[in-house]
Amino acid sequence: MDIEQKALKALLRIAESIYEQLKNGEIPEIEISTRTKYNIEFNEESEVWVYGDRTSTRSAKTLKGAYMMLRMAYVMGFIKEQLKVNKSSTLRELYYISENWGMAKFNEQADSDRLIEDLEILTAFQREHFHIRPEEDGATVIGPIRIREETRRGVREIHCQEDVGEGGYQIPVNVDRLEFVEHDAKFVIAIETGGMRDRLVENGFDEEFDAIIVHLKGQPARSTRRLLKRLNTELGLPVVVFTDGDPWSYRIYASVAYGSIKSAHLSEYLATPAAKFVGIRPSDIVKYNLPSDKLNEQDVKALNAILTDPRFDSDFWRSEVKLQLDLGKKSEQQALAKYGLDYVTDVYLPERLTEMGILKA
Amino acid sequence: MDIEQKALKALLRIAESIYEQLKNGEIPEIEISTRTKYNIEFNEESEVWVYGDRTSTRSAKTLKGAYMMLRMAYVMGFIKEQLKVNKSSTLRELYYISENWGMAKFNEQADSDRLIEDLEILTAFQREHFHIRPEEDGATVIGPIRIREETRRGVREIHCQEDVGEGGYQIPVNVDRLEFVEHDAKFVIAIETGGMRDRLVENGFDEEFDAIIVHLKGQPARSTRRLLKRLNTELGLPVVVFTDGDPWSYRIYASVAYGSIKSAHLSEYLATPAAKFVGIRPSDIVKYNLPSDKLNEQDVKALNAILTDPRFDSDFWRSEVKLQLDLGKKSEQQALAKYGLDYVTDVYLPERLTEMGILKA
Repeated sequence: MDIEQKALKALLRIAESIYEQLKNGEIPEIEISTRTKYNIEFNEESEVWVYGDRTSTRSAKTLKGAYMMLRMAYVMGFIKEQLKVNKSSTLRELYYISENWGMAKFNEQADSDRLIEDLEILTAFQREHFHIRPEEDGATVIGPIRIREETRRGVREIHCQEDVGEGGYQIPVNVDRLEFVEHDAKFVIAIETGGMRDRLVENGFDEEFDAIIVHLKGQPARSTRRLLKRLNTELGLPVVVFTDGDPWSYRIYASVAYGSIKSAHLSEYLATPAAKFVGIRPSDIVKYNLPSDKLNEQDVKALNAILTDPRFDSDFWRSEVKLQLDLGKKSEQQALAKYGLDYVTDVYLPERLTEMGILKA
Repeated sequence: MDIEQKALKALLRIAESIYEQLKNGEIPEIEISTRTKYNIEFNEESEVWVYGDRTSTRSAKTLKGAYMMLRMAYVMGFIKEQLKVNKSSTLRELYYISENWGMAKFNEQADSDRLIEDLEILTAFQREHFHIRPEEDGATVIGPIRIREETRRGVREIHCQEDVGEGGYQIPVNVDRLEFVEHDAKFVIAIETGGMRDRLVENGFDEEFDAIIVHLKGQPARSTRRLLKRLNTELGLPVVVFTDGDPWSYRIYASVAYGSIKSAHLSEYLATPAAKFVGIRPSDIVKYNLPSDKLNEQDVKALNAILTDPRFDSDFWRSEVKLQLDLGKKSEQQALAKYGLDYVTDVYLPERLTEMGILKA
């Protein structure tokens, strides 16, 4: 039985439970994990943040609960039909499709998005298994790895250096349909900005250092995070994250390494706890005398929030964040260009990655 | 002589002119097209909007003019070195590189970006020929066409259906390095949103209708517009543009078809005047009873601006925009999902493209 069939079966169990309750003359209810920061806990084994034991009950006794169950029934029916004909749809399309569902019509997309998340939590499957896609773009990969992608037009084998242009290989939405055929990589470097990704590709960093270069495109899509996780766990490759030096970028790193509060039910599937932070570090601003901008009010607020975020509870982050608040400055990845276009690949990254033990001295 | 060498030669002519003026004991000056909407005119022959005859003179008599020439000299020197070693850099990197130029250092990136545009206008070449890249992403292509890309790792031949995953072929920054090897396409459809692009790919629209699907990703990057232009002029393929039904999307269409005021010096290189607008049209909101949102204040303002924009001076646009102002509504591409996931490819697009003469009845 393929994973879609298993996901469908899990969905149908929800429907059965509602049906059984109704048959027994009970007003149906559904129990689901509470999704607040008070119900997030660190799982020692998987080293990621997941939902705790607190649950809340949604009952058809209330109008709101009854609406939720009606909508859930429609959505489950839609997913069942969609999987039968091997189709997929976006979260946005799902919202529009509900236009013809009478009283079950969603009032805004936030409601249908949330219901899909509820179904993820209830079934312990991911919306990708229901063939529900986001609008977000997958990112690109370039490096010494051969990938087999099962597309609806047949299987494609693509070597991410030899069979792609300089744009690289475009990560598809459902990364679980990829197979890693073979590779010569020593590590994976995930990069925030397109400019820096292009710099490493142009300078042949992937070839010289046997690196797989993954473009994060800012806050990474689920598919990108899932790919990093799979490269790390299945191929045993170290993953390093290279971003700008500001609090928003540290959060990008955290979402790769530890998962996010909003999708803590997926942390074990998406987070790569072994991922290490390369920089730009606040101490780099001093060490390399980097061109910088002043921190604005939002930056300062975000840095202070990081100081109380359990995901950043380490000496490294505390001292770096405090230094940054003292400096009052932030720098971008591309600020390294101050020392010429090759500095990042000839000096900065080799030095840092050797310090980190990723490259051998 | 390849195009980079020609571009470099044109750059050096600017330097020579400054040098000659200095040698003759004159205070050097540079004459350049005035870049305002009062100096935009329609070129009947190429059917795009270009700069007119008005020029302004920048002289080293003023401090501002002298700074500009100093910076220009540094930038030209940098580009010369970069082309010599076959490197490229982003606009952002160029700004940071100027850190070490003493008095020629740029104060903000807007200044260095503008200077590169000045060099484009003065030389009649494009920054791509100087190997200056934007941060923006190129988009993706899927369809029955085989492309040959000259990369710095050798030549790659890629069929945009058979050799790519569902993510498609990633358009590189310098589209002029692509060669179209062969194709079976009847037309090109450029699509604003990723959700709709994925819908057409999933439904096999490119295979059924022999279409090349290009994802615009919102306001399209130069490389995407250049690719559309080349597909239209070199292969003689009709280009149609499929967007959301709001004024921002009509501007996306206009930038593909007519060029933009900011880069009117590149219109002949980037604009595809033959490109036709598929929709979503305001009249579609009525015709298909599409789910819609209310126009907000900005939307209304933008629609009124379109009524006085010379690029939209046609009966079609006047009546559609007036209808939209009357309706007070806008709709998204994905609103067609109201009628099911296949409606757009089974009904909407075939009907519209037949009306437009792109598909034969």
